[in-house]
Amino acid sequence: MKRKIAVLGGDQRQVCLARLLYEDGWNTVTWGLEKADTSLAVSLDRALEAEIVVLPLPVCRGEDLNLSLTDIRLPVNEVVKRLRPDQLILGGMVRSLPEAFINGDCPKLYDYYDREEIQIFNAVPTAEGAIMRAIEKTQGTLYGSRCLVVGYGRIGKVLSHRLHHLGADVTVSARKRSDLAWGEVYGYRTVHTEKIVDRIGDYDLIFNTVPSMVLDAACLKEVKQSCILIELASPPGGIDREAVKEYNLHLLEERGLPGIIAPEASAKVIRDAIYHILEEQGERE
Amino acid sequence: MKRKIAVLGGDQRQVCLARLLYEDGWNTVTWGLEKADTSLAVSLDRALEAEIVVLPLPVCRGEDLNLSLTDIRLPVNEVVKRLRPDQLILGGMVRSLPEAFINGDCPKLYDYYDREEIQIFNAVPTAEGAIMRAIEKTQGTLYGSRCLVVGYGRIGKVLSHRLHHLGADVTVSARKRSDLAWGEVYGYRTVHTEKIVDRIGDYDLIFNTVPSMVLDAACLKEVKQSCILIELASPPGGIDREAVKEYNLHLLEERGLPGIIAPEASAKVIRDAIYHILEEQGERE
Amino acid sequence: MKRKIAVLGGDQRQVCLARLLYEDGWNTVTWGLEKADTSLAVSLDRALEAEIVVLPLPVCRGEDLNLSLTDIRLPVNEVVKRLRPDQLILGGMVRSLPEAFINGDCPKLYDYYDREEIQIFNAVPTAEGAIMRAIEKTQGTLYGSRCLVVGYGRIGKVLSHRLHHLGADVTVSARKRSDLAWGEVYGYRTVHTEKIVDRIGDYDLIFNTVPSMVLDAACLKEVKQSCILIELASPPGGIDREAVKEYNLHLLEERGLPGIIAPEASAKVIRDAIYHILEEQGERE
Amino acid sequence: MKRKIAVLGGDQRQVCLARLLYEDGWNTVTWGLEKADTSLAVSLDRALEAEIVVLPLPVCRGEDLNLSLTDIRLPVNEVVKRLRPDQLILGGMVRSLPEAFINGDCPKLYDYYDREEIQIFNAVPTAEGAIMRAIEKTQGTLYGSRCLVVGYGRIGKVLSHRLHHLGADVTVSARKRSDLAWGEVYGYRTVHTEKIVDRIGDYDLIFNTVPSMVLDAACLKEVKQSCILIELASPPGGIDREAVKEYNLHLLEERGLPGIIAPEASAKVIRDAIYHILEEQGERE
Repeated sequence: MKRKIAVLGGDQRQVCLARLLYEDGWNTVTWGLEKADTSLAVSLDRALEAEIVVLPLPVCRGEDLNLSLTDIRLPVNEVVKRLRPDQLILGGMVRSLPEAFINGDCPKLYDYYDREEIQIFNAVPTAEGAIMRAIEKTQGTLYGSRCLVVGYGRIGKVLSHRLHHLGADVTVSARKRSDLAWGEVYGYRTVHTEKIVDRIGDYDLIFNTVPSMVLDAACLKEVKQSCILIELASPPGGIDREAVKEYNLHLLEERGLPGIIAPEASAKVIRDAIYHILEEQGERE
Repeated sequence: MKRKIAVLGGDQRQVCLARLLYEDGWNTVTWGLEKADTSLAVSLDRALEAEIVVLPLPVCRGEDLNLSLTDIRLPVNEVVKRLRPDQLILGGMVRSLPEAFINGDCPKLYDYYDREEIQIFNAVPTAEGAIMRAIEKTQGTLYGSRCLVVGYGRIGKVLSHRLHHLGADVTVSARKRSDLAWGEVYGYRTVHTEKIVDRIGDYDLIFNTVPSMVLDAACLKEVKQSCILIELASPPGGIDREAVKEYNLHLLEERGLPGIIAPEASAKVIRDAIYHILEEQGERE
Repeated sequence: MKRKIAVLGGDQRQVCLARLLYEDGWNTVTWGLEKADTSLAVSLDRALEAEIVVLPLPVCRGEDLNLSLTDIRLPVNEVVKRLRPDQLILGGMVRSLPEAFINGDCPKLYDYYDREEIQIFNAVPTAEGAIMRAIEKTQGTLYGSRCLVVGYGRIGKVLSHRLHHLGADVTVSARKRSDLAWGEVYGYRTVHTEKIVDRIGDYDLIFNTVPSMVLDAACLKEVKQSCILIELASPPGGIDREAVKEYNLHLLEERGLPGIIAPEASAKVIRDAIYHILEEQGERE
Repeated sequence: MKRKIAVLGGDQRQVCLARLLYEDGWNTVTWGLEKADTSLAVSLDRALEAEIVVLPLPVCRGEDLNLSLTDIRLPVNEVVKRLRPDQLILGGMVRSLPEAFINGDCPKLYDYYDREEIQIFNAVPTAEGAIMRAIEKTQGTLYGSRCLVVGYGRIGKVLSHRLHHLGADVTVSARKRSDLAWGEVYGYRTVHTEKIVDRIGDYDLIFNTVPSMVLDAACLKEVKQSCILIELASPPGGIDREAVKEYNLHLLEERGLPGIIAPEASAKVIRDAIYHILEEQGERE
């Protein structure tokens, strides 16, 4: 029997993760997932006794622990003060945890999302989820539609690749000449971010992947009424929500898509990241 | 002003079609679409006065006219007996209309769906809709999933192409050696339809496009529990529904996807087909 | 030991075919391949004693047997009159053999090329060879080049697919609306064959796959000087050679590409076809 | 009339570059291209009078100026000492010029190849050239062949993308987890560089893009006899040439492919880079 591991809160990914860990032979317990699965559920007290505690991705929603599958609300501080220095704590995006906790109180805190390969694999369900929404919400087909993908980071790369191969007419926006060159080499149209406004009225679909303001009021004013805007970036995102309202545009805010449309695939990626951390820390027996 | 054209019943595609015809300058009226749009609505009597009558796709649901956007039910016979021989009647899949009507009573009856290019273009929204459902319903990503596409007709061709480019591991089944050869040349795995059962337990997703029994009880018995089955073929389809229940499998019956996920794109295709017919009949001014 | 099989004449494909048959355990002999390989060579007399005789693809070059790997010339009639009715004769494109021979003198004559799947697989090395020549002969990259593929049969389908994925801007010409629809669905531009002339001056590369005149003097007059024309169709092809000279255009006549660039892959396809024939004829032990 | 610009030495790209500059209105002269084009040729003395001097890519071959289209040999030092500090000097890979020249003697020296977007676009003709050679030299088709692409830098990325879409079974090797993740997301197999040896006997084609030893004797010992090795990296490359001889393998050393197979496309990329430099230096009128 392996050591005791507790999976706390989060979304359907945590449910799948707990099951995967259990199947791998860990003594697994869960807390805060009761709307989805109670088969491994224990009290918070018992969960916090575990040698390894897996917090959700992202670990916080404002001041609270990220808890989407329970009606309970729990301030992150309540959790943090009950953790022990000998425990191995794993979480996603742990930067948003209280500073004192990060810097010292918790010597064995690791961020499983702070690994480039995890974020690359995570871009796949995000892109698929965006495609699902786009198919659902537009009156036309993706095939033949004019799509703008704002930003050519991880999500921008995967999404533009997939849309292109579904027959969309894809334009990628970026600021770096090298990103624009890559977009062209892979077969997309490209536009420098500063010139987005010039042809923004052409698009049937606009996907934003940049977490800072790009699609401001001046841009949105030119967007056509039938266009669907899909926000994929972390808050605050890159689309001016006030202007969206003013111009009566159709905006979908789609965050956490991996947990919604591919919890199992996402959980496998997180599990692998956790195992890599355990190996690197010499913590895996 | 062009001639008077009436668009009767059907789904969201007919709503879009009426609008497109109106924008092209036709004197357009509609009936039976009141749940979606009443801007061009008239009474059935007035609609039936039009020189050109566009019936839905498919034209019938059993004995009734296909009416999904009204609570009214209307037997096809009621419509048919009120049409005049001088009217141009256009419908989709008109073979299901009463025989006497097809053979004589209506000399100017044309099937806008009875054209290969229409059915090819229609395969695109069907494939996209199937992809949308697959992304939504599976716990994993399409990327990396093992997909079986049963049948290599129009829908099979487009769907396997799209899935392949989304990174799925696609197997196509067919009976003809030439279809299997094409599948291989485009990069898919292939299996002869008679040998589907051999590895059917491998798939995460099975899409059927064949309108006669292929996935019988013997096949379905081997399908894994987490597999999602998607029926895309016209009734009766190719999946044994009794066996699906017996083995407690997950079946999605997805018909009419073009009307659901891409009514506008589909309406454009139908409009173009109608114009081709009018031209060929010397009926277009 | 299997029966005696003789491989006569042809190109590098026959050399590879003989080796493949030998490796499969057949008592294999060859004649007419001495420029490439003499390891299995016997005299013509001894070769013609074999129970199974494999003639080349195509079997004839004019009146002669197709012999590209020997300096000997041999009229097909000389071979034909020495064959016995009990022998199994396999050849590619046997329609060009003397009529009397086809209709009766040779009851066990089979055409291994007269099978759709063979011709489909054969389109792959033809497309790759055309791509090789295009890369070699143009001053630019295929990426970004404007390519016209005339005809959407087997070669047209594979070639346009490959060019598209290499980043070329592909236009496909065809006469049937359904072929044009397929071209669009796969992401190419399309043009009706009768309207090719309208924009023929745009292309950097023109590939012909139609074996009858399409690119006549009126078309060629508009082709730009730097354009490379590649003829892939069987004689007489579809490009007016007189006009090519008159307008001083650059024409590559590329026939027999599978034998040149992929003899081994092609030989495997032929071997499989031969085995299918033997099985169907009950001739395979 | 724009200023006087001299294009010195190099390969077919410089010929195309001179023509492009001439067409753009520059007072263009050339030296050292006489095997290809003498229409703009002047003496070396006159060429060195120009306000802007464009040296080739790469600028040196050992101690000499890179001169492939003339029989003359000219030490780089001879050129360097005759250049004036007021001249604008543009070259490709200028790091290999004499150190004193780089650090001071030539205040207005710029490297047009030292820009990421140039190198990205240059990867396209390199990939196409590698594909051309692979089609030519293998006995089979790329379709279905097992290809190893060593390294996932610019050339590795473009080449694996193109091979994958031609139907090859592509494996990419890299050292970084993030590179391996990207390879998987785009649909290739991946292998960590240190484990290449494990399955190296499987490949029909091996392309190296890494400019330091990867495919050493231990690896090459396991490569199958029919495999084609293609070296694409700058000297010294990553393939042990001694071991290639010892094991009697088939190695193609393919350098300078852009200049060979796509001089015009390459020249356009260089011209654009030169214009960007002129703009950034305020040197473009």
